Amino acid sequence: MVIFFVIRDFDDSTPNFSQNFFKRNLLILPASKMKCEYCEKEAVENIYGRYYCENHFVKYFLGRVRSIIDKFGINGRIAVALSGGKDSSACFHSLHKLKLDLLPFYINLGIESYSEICQKKAEELCNSLGYRLHIIDINEYGINLADEKKPCSVCGTAKRYLMNKFAYENNCKYVATGHNLSDVVTFALNNFMNANLMNFRGNRPYLEGKEEYKMVAKIKPLYWLKDKECMLYVYINRLRYAEEECPHAISAPTIQIKEWIHEMEGKKPGIMLNMAKSFWRLEEMIGSKAKLNICRKCGYASYSKICKFCKIRKR
Amino acid sequence: MVIFFVIRDFDDSTPNFSQNFFKRNLLILPASKMKCEYCEKEAVENIYGRYYCENHFVKYFLGRVRSIIDKFGINGRIAVALSGGKDSSACFHSLHKLKLDLLPFYINLGIESYSEICQKKAEELCNSLGYRLHIIDINEYGINLADEKKPCSVCGTAKRYLMNKFAYENNCKYVATGHNLSDVVTFALNNFMNANLMNFRGNRPYLEGKEEYKMVAKIKPLYWLKDKECMLYVYINRLRYAEEECPHAISAPTIQIKEWIHEMEGKKPGIMLNMAKSFWRLEEMIGSKAKLNICRKCGYASYSKICKFCKIRKR
Repeated sequence: MVIFFVIRDFDDSTPNFSQNFFKRNLLILPASKMKCEYCEKEAVENIYGRYYCENHFVKYFLGRVRSIIDKFGINGRIAVALSGGKDSSACFHSLHKLKLDLLPFYINLGIESYSEICQKKAEELCNSLGYRLHIIDINEYGINLADEKKPCSVCGTAKRYLMNKFAYENNCKYVATGHNLSDVVTFALNNFMNANLMNFRGNRPYLEGKEEYKMVAKIKPLYWLKDKECMLYVYINRLRYAEEECPHAISAPTIQIKEWIHEMEGKKPGIMLNMAKSFWRLEEMIGSKAKLNICRKCGYASYSKICKFCKIRKR
Repeated sequence: MVIFFVIRDFDDSTPNFSQNFFKRNLLILPASKMKCEYCEKEAVENIYGRYYCENHFVKYFLGRVRSIIDKFGINGRIAVALSGGKDSSACFHSLHKLKLDLLPFYINLGIESYSEICQKKAEELCNSLGYRLHIIDINEYGINLADEKKPCSVCGTAKRYLMNKFAYENNCKYVATGHNLSDVVTFALNNFMNANLMNFRGNRPYLEGKEEYKMVAKIKPLYWLKDKECMLYVYINRLRYAEEECPHAISAPTIQIKEWIHEMEGKKPGIMLNMAKSFWRLEEMIGSKAKLNICRKCGYASYSKICKFCKIRKR
């Protein structure tokens, strides 16, 4: 059974934002005193100074997703990456509501009980919406993250590769991921802090596909929506998702960056949106100057002779 | 009389870093237990894991400044902007130590007693090093910051313009300013947060001059040196500087950004350096695509028909 909470004064600046998000931040509170700007119902959220009731918040949320779909003329089958977490659940559900042609898949990363719990939640979500979930197992490629020195790096490489491969082999024009505004901003800052501009590339809501490299287009439908808004969407729609955090991510440096960004956003709403706009424009100005090749082993795109995935896979 | 302090465990992550920096952060402490890596003397600073005594810290500092001078082949007269504050004092003194041809100047911004105190400190510094300080008075152009709605914006425009004009009219090839690593990183983040990429341009240690636009080259000799290191340099060399903060800057949003950046740097030394490298590379990739014109009123460079300075000046 999913319990539904009335949410009020949900604060962006709460510490440890991404750790145990659910327990710390979602409070059962008496109804808000504010009214929705668009009807007489009670407001559940304040976005850039405007109050929204549940229904109008969902409309706002879907409007932000639709703005990405429309801007880039998304039309065709979309492979939707589900992680079992709140963001990909919100992403999948919103695309479903917009009546797009979807093919949901889940990559089982073999991380102890975490991966099993997440897979179960993703399956439940798919069942509830009438989809069959496709499962990809990272162990089939001989990768065991528990044995890796840099599990997050290996996991990232594997996920990027397997998402594209799944979409390509299943005749999808696009892969959609649940990266939200909070992720986009955090990711960019983290890359600056590591002087890693290579990773900064592609940090925008839509990346074109390249048929000759078997590269499917990538979309981030939640690009304009904050962590908090995704959470609220998930709650209002009573979607199943895993509350668990990946055990490898708990000490990630990005957590401190995300906390600070939300603290600043709390003081001056709109700075995250401005940062995402800045990074998107920067990314467009830079363009992709790195030369693409075709991996000699697998035939997919690579920046060197053998792609990163073929280097990390054991079989 | 200048009092000299032995500094130890000077902490980057102290809150309110830029406000009352002096009082909060410089402590009279018993001598450090660590030895300098390069001699037997007591260490006063730890930089990226290495300990430095006073003498070797000064050598390190001058080495960082020299790296900028050498990389860009700086050779010719440099107009040095003095604000009376610690950074421009450190910048001027280090360029003097490197035996460059310098012409120091001060822009009196007419900000109550603050401008008078700063001018006095800049004059004392120049006298102690055997230079005559040139004074530019913003009031001569009919600008009174106290009357302005956005004094910081008007001040920025006026300073940029008058620095270049002074250098150009006095046959200098360069203008040097005291922007340090902390400033560079803070400035870039603040521009991202305001979606102001126009200002992001030029955020690098050296910007070429353009004779046809009467634009003198700009250098930031302290580009690789943190707030804290500039402060230590000023103390070791017993330089005069104004401790006062500009009354307009006290509530500036950049203060929070700077505090956070130093907090993160304290946890993971090197991230500020990485960010500055990232921003410099980004800036180079973007290049300057904005078209320059010649201002119809004053004949200096402008992005529109009339330059910003001619728009704000009253006479």
